[in-house]
Amino acid sequence: MSIIRKTYNYFYSPDRVFVRRLLNLVGFIPVNLQIFKLAFAHKSSTSDKAYAMQNNERLEFLGDAILGTIVAEYLFQKYPSENEGFLTKMRSKIVKRKSLNKIGEKMGLDLLLSEYNQTRLSKSMLGNAVEALVGAVYLEKGYKPTKKFVIKKILRNYVDVHELENYDDNYKSQLLEWCQKHGQTISYKLLARYKFEKRDRFKVAVIIDGKKVAVADDFNKKSAEQTASEKAMHTLGIMEPEIEQD
Amino acid sequence: MSIIRKTYNYFYSPDRVFVRRLLNLVGFIPVNLQIFKLAFAHKSSTSDKAYAMQNNERLEFLGDAILGTIVAEYLFQKYPSENEGFLTKMRSKIVKRKSLNKIGEKMGLDLLLSEYNQTRLSKSMLGNAVEALVGAVYLEKGYKPTKKFVIKKILRNYVDVHELENYDDNYKSQLLEWCQKHGQTISYKLLARYKFEKRDRFKVAVIIDGKKVAVADDFNKKSAEQTASEKAMHTLGIMEPEIEQD
Repeated sequence: MSIIRKTYNYFYSPDRVFVRRLLNLVGFIPVNLQIFKLAFAHKSSTSDKAYAMQNNERLEFLGDAILGTIVAEYLFQKYPSENEGFLTKMRSKIVKRKSLNKIGEKMGLDLLLSEYNQTRLSKSMLGNAVEALVGAVYLEKGYKPTKKFVIKKILRNYVDVHELENYDDNYKSQLLEWCQKHGQTISYKLLARYKFEKRDRFKVAVIIDGKKVAVADDFNKKSAEQTASEKAMHTLGIMEPEIEQD
Repeated sequence: MSIIRKTYNYFYSPDRVFVRRLLNLVGFIPVNLQIFKLAFAHKSSTSDKAYAMQNNERLEFLGDAILGTIVAEYLFQKYPSENEGFLTKMRSKIVKRKSLNKIGEKMGLDLLLSEYNQTRLSKSMLGNAVEALVGAVYLEKGYKPTKKFVIKKILRNYVDVHELENYDDNYKSQLLEWCQKHGQTISYKLLARYKFEKRDRFKVAVIIDGKKVAVADDFNKKSAEQTASEKAMHTLGIMEPEIEQD
């Protein structure tokens, strides 16, 4: 039965273009095409938002959990002597919104998304579709094949784990490097120190070539300097700002 | 081989008390006892904190992800017409620290923890041990049996999903109810409204029988009132404060 259904899906279905694209993407022909179509249906495209089953948000919820677990296990096995802090940090580098959006883009999910949605594509729709697709694969195949799919088709193709290990999210040192390269002076100035909910809070500015480029607040000076440096990098166009959910 | 090992573990192992307790807890005799012992070893009890493999934090990292996924799938299947927001909320009610600590207590994990640790038990050690135990079951058995274990031995025994559906985390209405029952007057007073990081922030007090019982800040008045009500419930001893990681 399922082979007949698959053959039909492949050769005779009106969805044969979709099926071929899916085959490329996930490595098998799904029996339940409906779930995979749902994975690419953004909520803005469903006529009635009350029908939870008509968009990919539920699949995204499921896929987000499954993807997180597969990545957790992958790192757990790959780094047998690293502690929980390292594993948590590595995982968040892989599954954070910005990374998933990039993965979705590299997987070419924009093609499928634009077919199933009338709205303009946003970057976060790509990352959400990655999660929803993982959810759909899980419902179709179960945990082990989904693990294989995620590791072979996503992690190995689009995630450079070793690069992530060394990935520098120290914005202060990145900004310093940039200033040195461009012959600009850089300094940090404490603008204010005040109490907030009984805790000390610090307001810090980054001064580049005598000009106040960015300001940030935090509960310690170092974190405020980091955030201010990150903001300065956006202002100076050195780094694109992280795009959050829309 | 594994049957011989299991028989040995059950009848002849010096750990037979531990093995019997585990059998009660997880429903099978583990081949790899070492992993299960690790699940109950808190980091404070390991002589050298640098050895990540000597305490349960890595297992906790893995188990936390797996438990989250199993609960996500369980809710996804149980509530086919609820949206992502409902599922997310329900899941966090089940897997939040406070619930896991209670589950660990009901499972009797304190017995096993006190055997493997010299330090005084804290509530959060119980919740962490639940996660680490799920991680150990996963490493021993794989995903499907772990799902069965979590649903049969944890969710069905210790989580009342329907009660959680109706569980009221509206502290304001709970406090109001308490005041009415105890014949006390209650009112909220806006103490201050100020700017914080360019956003309005509200400082609110709960006044019970003319006395300021608790104060809270938030970016909107309603949330500040909720938080202040929660604090007031702790102060008045109506509700135990949520215990976070220690």
